[in-house]
Amino acid sequence: MIKATVYVTIKQSVLDPQGNAVQGALHSMGFNEVGKVRIGKYLELTLNTVDRNEAEARVRTMCEKLLANTVIEDYRFELEGY
Amino acid sequence: MIKATVYVTIKQSVLDPQGNAVQGALHSMGFNEVGKVRIGKYLELTLNTVDRNEAEARVRTMCEKLLANTVIEDYRFELEGY
Repeated sequence: MIKATVYVTIKQSVLDPQGNAVQGALHSMGFNEVGKVRIGKYLELTLNTVDRNEAEARVRTMCEKLLANTVIEDYRFELEGY
Repeated sequence: MIKATVYVTIKQSVLDPQGNAVQGALHSMGFNEVGKVRIGKYLELTLNTVDRNEAEARVRTMCEKLLANTVIEDYRFELEGY
């Protein structure tokens, strides 16, 4: 079994209204040291496979097809066998 | 300036309907090796401070008060000075 951890983040050139809202909320709570806030997704998947190379290719396809919108988002992932 | 990376995940004992929906979608796309899927949030904050210990305490307070719902979510964070 392989555990995949996927991070999906909004591209630097794309506005992040959710991040701006959180930044505003933090400022209004007195956390004035907070500069930029960017929010992304964090996914943990367990894969019932033992072939790490195959898992890497499959997770990449999952990201391209479903998990990330590659027009506005970047993704990266880590695999961990156990 | 310190960069904080915050990971907010749903507690193991709490149902994750978003994760289940993604798991179902991946299965219907032919990714039948996918077992459990858990989805969380990933936040990057820049802090205009140089005191690492203070930053750690402040980020912990931000998580407790705003960024995570500690009833159903866990959080962890990393600090990176630059």
